[in-house]
Amino acid sequence: MSTIVSTQVQLAARPTGWPTADDFRTVQVMYGDPEPGQVRVVNEFVSVDPYMRGRMNDVKSYVPPYALGETMTGAAVGRVVASASDDVPVGAVVLHQLGWRDVAQAEAKYFQVVPEIPGAPLSLRLGILGMTGMTAYVGLTAIAGLQPGETVFVSGAAGAVGTAVGQIARLLGAERVVGSAGSAEKVELLTSKYGYDAAFNYKDGPVRRQLRDVTPGGVDVFFDNVGGDHLEAALDRMNDGGRLALCGAISAYNATERPAGPDNMANAVTRGLMLKGFTLPSYLHHGPEFQERMTEWFAAGKIAYDETVVDGIENAPQAFLDMMRGGNIGKMVVRTAG
Amino acid sequence: MSTIVSTQVQLAARPTGWPTADDFRTVQVMYGDPEPGQVRVVNEFVSVDPYMRGRMNDVKSYVPPYALGETMTGAAVGRVVASASDDVPVGAVVLHQLGWRDVAQAEAKYFQVVPEIPGAPLSLRLGILGMTGMTAYVGLTAIAGLQPGETVFVSGAAGAVGTAVGQIARLLGAERVVGSAGSAEKVELLTSKYGYDAAFNYKDGPVRRQLRDVTPGGVDVFFDNVGGDHLEAALDRMNDGGRLALCGAISAYNATERPAGPDNMANAVTRGLMLKGFTLPSYLHHGPEFQERMTEWFAAGKIAYDETVVDGIENAPQAFLDMMRGGNIGKMVVRTAG
Repeated sequence: MSTIVSTQVQLAARPTGWPTADDFRTVQVMYGDPEPGQVRVVNEFVSVDPYMRGRMNDVKSYVPPYALGETMTGAAVGRVVASASDDVPVGAVVLHQLGWRDVAQAEAKYFQVVPEIPGAPLSLRLGILGMTGMTAYVGLTAIAGLQPGETVFVSGAAGAVGTAVGQIARLLGAERVVGSAGSAEKVELLTSKYGYDAAFNYKDGPVRRQLRDVTPGGVDVFFDNVGGDHLEAALDRMNDGGRLALCGAISAYNATERPAGPDNMANAVTRGLMLKGFTLPSYLHHGPEFQERMTEWFAAGKIAYDETVVDGIENAPQAFLDMMRGGNIGKMVVRTAG
Repeated sequence: MSTIVSTQVQLAARPTGWPTADDFRTVQVMYGDPEPGQVRVVNEFVSVDPYMRGRMNDVKSYVPPYALGETMTGAAVGRVVASASDDVPVGAVVLHQLGWRDVAQAEAKYFQVVPEIPGAPLSLRLGILGMTGMTAYVGLTAIAGLQPGETVFVSGAAGAVGTAVGQIARLLGAERVVGSAGSAEKVELLTSKYGYDAAFNYKDGPVRRQLRDVTPGGVDVFFDNVGGDHLEAALDRMNDGGRLALCGAISAYNATERPAGPDNMANAVTRGLMLKGFTLPSYLHHGPEFQERMTEWFAAGKIAYDETVVDGIENAPQAFLDMMRGGNIGKMVVRTAG
């Protein structure tokens, strides 16, 4: 009755160091009518995220590596246009992990029906109202145990997670929030829009010195998206009993040689620091709590956001590459043609 | 009525890098009769510990630095020989922190009366039945949350804390316990006397390779006394959800340049690892629990120990220097002449 062409982006080669457009290829897949139990979804937005870089390597990690010739999986949001399942009706908005394609067709179990949130573009389900925002929330609460009155430092603060961390930290009662970013424009945005008390451009000089200048009272909670010199600088500034939520290490993702680690790990002993790495799949049980609080904050107009939107599924690789180099402010998403 | 000469060892100079005997000086102090509220104690043993190296530097830490010309404070155990206090009677065994001296005289509040433990030399109050054993216990329980069936790796396993960690881990139900030490003799002792399943001499080859060879199933809990290449090797071998109790970093204490840190901190993110540094002063509330369990284990003959005993308070500096270079097996103590 209704066959459809799905444009999909696959991993064509495993990059060494920085990926390039040649590591991907775009293919067309034909779908016939949904079979019994299947659903057809036209995506509106697909997500490009830093963790995907790790999956392009053929190494064991918390998510398995992409197979060569496999369509890049990852978060996406769309609407059901055809359904042969009683569980997922036509017209429903669904989240799924089928990734970089404009049309997704699969068994209903792969799709999670979510309500529309008044005033919120669907893309926010991939960002501040979705996994990105939840990563920020879990890192500050379950991992770092942020207490009111504390000072928070966020690395990569203008990224998707970072812009959420600063605001959530403030809403949870942080006394002072400081962040780093990679351009003057981003730094300005952090203090003007995202409630940061101070921010610095890590390209302007040593992170160690710049962080010291903006944290006269030290740091209680460090939310790390970057690793490397940022982690080292934070270890110097942590107050006794400080907690470091290690969310990412984008500085290392494309390195071909292992970077030297922080030279001051001994501070962890003398200051009684806790460093805890985390990835969201282990903390999905915090989802309901996050959704409740974030929806309330959003409805009350307390959540600012930026998105960097790239049009066309065929441009997903370039969006991903730009994001890895810091070309985004807030969440980077790809708007699919539908 | 009864003046007495106390021989004491003071810090004479702040070392850069490895300390030498010239950084200390021995002095004689005269005490008159104890004044009202005071107690006179003849020490039997005084402790030399790695953390003292940090106090010789003029930097802020969890214990303040030694002042030049101050007697080296630290743990000691002795008997009360004269008392002008109702709280601390003559004949009592007392623990105190007045350190490197053969006679201590001060207000009663500085002395903690402790019961004698059948079959236990008083020196064990400075070691496995005291702060050393408690450091091992707290690290495995409150910090690392060791669970039965897990694999534990201990660096510096033949030292005072390390010999306690291996045994306590086993008593708490660890499935496999492996350790590193700095000589063939120590390695042999770990497997023959201290219940280690495997051990290696870190001087025999890269820690990374040697650790891999003895942990085919990975590591769940790492108890670190060494830092540096041991921490880096452990980060490679940790299983998902692993915990790293960071107790010391003796590899760095005498370094004049900051050592490069672990090049694989990103593993903390992908494997959901928790690294937690600790020093005992923050965990003294675990004392009663530790004393109860350890006394029971000791009475049941389940606790082995070694001590390296040096005679004469004037030899405390050399004992300390030997300990820093790994010249001890088990706890290093100085037997005072009395």
